[in-house]
Amino acid sequence: MAGPNPLDAVPFMAADLDRVEDLLTLSAASADPYLTEICSHLVTAGGKRVRPGFCLASAAVRLAEGGSSLESTIAGAAAVELVHLGSLYHDDVMDEAVVRRQVESVNARWGNIRAILAGDFLLARASELAASLGVEVAALLAATIGRLCEGQVLELKHSFDVERTEQQYLAAIDGKTASLLGASCRIGAIVAGLDAEQTDALTAFGKEYGMAFQIVDDVLDIVSTEADLGKPVGHDLEEGVYTLPVIIALNSGHGEDLRALLGAPIDTATRDKALDIVIDSAGVTRSIERARSRAEVAVAALNTLPDSPGVRGLRAAADYLLAQVELAAA
Amino acid sequence: MAGPNPLDAVPFMAADLDRVEDLLTLSAASADPYLTEICSHLVTAGGKRVRPGFCLASAAVRLAEGGSSLESTIAGAAAVELVHLGSLYHDDVMDEAVVRRQVESVNARWGNIRAILAGDFLLARASELAASLGVEVAALLAATIGRLCEGQVLELKHSFDVERTEQQYLAAIDGKTASLLGASCRIGAIVAGLDAEQTDALTAFGKEYGMAFQIVDDVLDIVSTEADLGKPVGHDLEEGVYTLPVIIALNSGHGEDLRALLGAPIDTATRDKALDIVIDSAGVTRSIERARSRAEVAVAALNTLPDSPGVRGLRAAADYLLAQVELAAA
Repeated sequence: MAGPNPLDAVPFMAADLDRVEDLLTLSAASADPYLTEICSHLVTAGGKRVRPGFCLASAAVRLAEGGSSLESTIAGAAAVELVHLGSLYHDDVMDEAVVRRQVESVNARWGNIRAILAGDFLLARASELAASLGVEVAALLAATIGRLCEGQVLELKHSFDVERTEQQYLAAIDGKTASLLGASCRIGAIVAGLDAEQTDALTAFGKEYGMAFQIVDDVLDIVSTEADLGKPVGHDLEEGVYTLPVIIALNSGHGEDLRALLGAPIDTATRDKALDIVIDSAGVTRSIERARSRAEVAVAALNTLPDSPGVRGLRAAADYLLAQVELAAA
Repeated sequence: MAGPNPLDAVPFMAADLDRVEDLLTLSAASADPYLTEICSHLVTAGGKRVRPGFCLASAAVRLAEGGSSLESTIAGAAAVELVHLGSLYHDDVMDEAVVRRQVESVNARWGNIRAILAGDFLLARASELAASLGVEVAALLAATIGRLCEGQVLELKHSFDVERTEQQYLAAIDGKTASLLGASCRIGAIVAGLDAEQTDALTAFGKEYGMAFQIVDDVLDIVSTEADLGKPVGHDLEEGVYTLPVIIALNSGHGEDLRALLGAPIDTATRDKALDIVIDSAGVTRSIERARSRAEVAVAALNTLPDSPGVRGLRAAADYLLAQVELAAA
C-alpha cells in the first residue's frame, strides 16, 4: 500500500528512523565486501519501516514530547526490520520474484544460493542485536521467526485448496504478518521497561493491526487496479493463495461457479472471470468488515495507554489503515 | 568420514546424547504437523552428533567420572546441532542435492520452498534454545550463524577461480566449518561456568579441530575411493571448489597443466586427469601436513585443562582425526 507514513507525524520519528537506518547499514555489513553488497541490496532499496516505527512508537509511550529514543530501542527497531528483510530475501527465492521494491530482486541479480545465504545472514544479525537486549527479547525474536515460518508453511499447505477455511487463513496471516508486527511493539515496550499490562496492550495493538493490514492487502489484490497496486491484480489467485474474500466467495451462493475455475493454476482470462465472481460476491464486503473490526480492536488496545507521542503515532497508523479499509470498500 | 564415534568412550556420553536427541525431536516440532514432518526429516536421519558431543565433553571438564550433564548443557548441545541441521537444509537447496545421510534430501522430497522455510525454522529454534542459556550464548550462536554464511559466501566467491589463495581457502573453512565446532565447545564451557582461560582453550580446540577436519575431508575428496567415501571422488573439483591440495598443486611445478584443465565446469574425463595431477603434486602431502599440525595444535590446547572424562573424550576425537590424517597420507 503506497502513501505517506503516518508515523512521520511523531516528532522524533524521522530522526530516530535515520538512526535505525544507520544501524541497518552497519548490520548488513560483513567481513566480506561481496556479502555486504548482497545483504545491503534490500536495505538501501528502502521501505516504509513500519516495524521499526512500531517499535520506536511503543517504546515512546514513556518518552516526553521532546525526547529521543534510547540506543536499545534503536537496536530493537533495527532487529525487527532485519527479520523482515531477511524473510524477504527468502520469500523472493521462494516466489521466484524478479523485482522487489522497484529494484531487481536479490535472487534475480545474484542467484538463489546467495539470496538464501544473505537472508540467513540478516536473520543472524537480527538475533545478535536481540541478544544485546537481553534474553527476553532474544527469545521473543527467535520465537517470532519460527512463527513466520509456520505461517508461510500454513499458506503453502493450502495453496490451490478450494476447501481452505477462514480459520486456516487467519492462522496463516497471524504467523506470516501479525506476529512480527506484534513483536515489534512488544520489543519496544520491553526495552522501554513498560509494565506487563502496557506491554500486552501494545502487543495486542501490533497483532490486530497486522491482521487488519494483511486482510486489506489481500482485498486490494482483488479490488484494486494494476495502476494503484503497482503490480497486476489477482496475483494471489494465480499463485493459488486463496485469501479471505475468495474463501468467503467459495462458500457463498457463487461458490460453485468459482470452485469450477479454481483449484489449479489458471490463465489470465480465467483469473479475470474468477476475480469478477469474487467481487460480485459477499467476499469483499465481509472481508472489509473483518479488517475494520480488527483495526478497531487495535485502536481500542491503545486506549488503556497514557497519552504520549508514541500512542498518538500508533493511533495515526491505525487511522490510516482504517482509511485504507474505507477506500477498499468504496 | 565413516567410522566409530570416539566420543562414545566418554562414560556418560551415550546417555546424554540420547537426551540431546529427545530435545532435537522436540525442537523440530511445531504447531503444524506438516512443518514438523519436514523439520524432523534430517533429525531422524541421524548423524554423528559431533557438535553436541563437543559441547557435552567441554562442559564435562567440570564433571566427575560418574556425572551426567546439566539440562543447560543438553540445551546448548541441541542448539549447535540445530544450527548444523538448519544449515544442511539450506546447503541441500543450494547444492541441488538429492540425497543426504542416505535418505532423500528435504528439497528433493518437498521442494526448495519448504526446505528453505524448514531450515529457517530450525535456525530459529536453535536461537530460542540459545536465548534460554543467557545473552552470551545467544550472541555467540547468532554470530556463529553469521560466520557460517560468510564462510559459504567466501567459498562461492572463488568457485572456479584458479587464482584462489590458501588464505582465501582458510578463511572460508574457518567460517563454514571451524566456527561452529569452536562455538560448540565454547557454549559447553560457558554453560558449565568454566573460567575464561579454560573456555578459550576449549574454543581453540574446537576451531583447530574443525580446520583439520575440513582439510582432511577435502583431501579425502581427492585421494579416497568412491567405495570408501560413499560418494564419487573429485566432487569439489566438479563443483568448482578448489580446496587446499588443488590450490597447492596449481602453484607447484604441475600448475600450468592443471590450470589448463580447470577454471570452468568439466566432464568426468577431465576431472580424472585433474585428480591425477593433484595426486602427483605436492598438494596432497602438504595439505596433510597442515591438517596434522592443526590437529596437534588442537590437542595442545587440551593440555592446559584438568584431566577429566570430557578432556579425554575430546583427546580421543582428536586422536581419531589424526589417525584419519595418517590414513589419508598412506
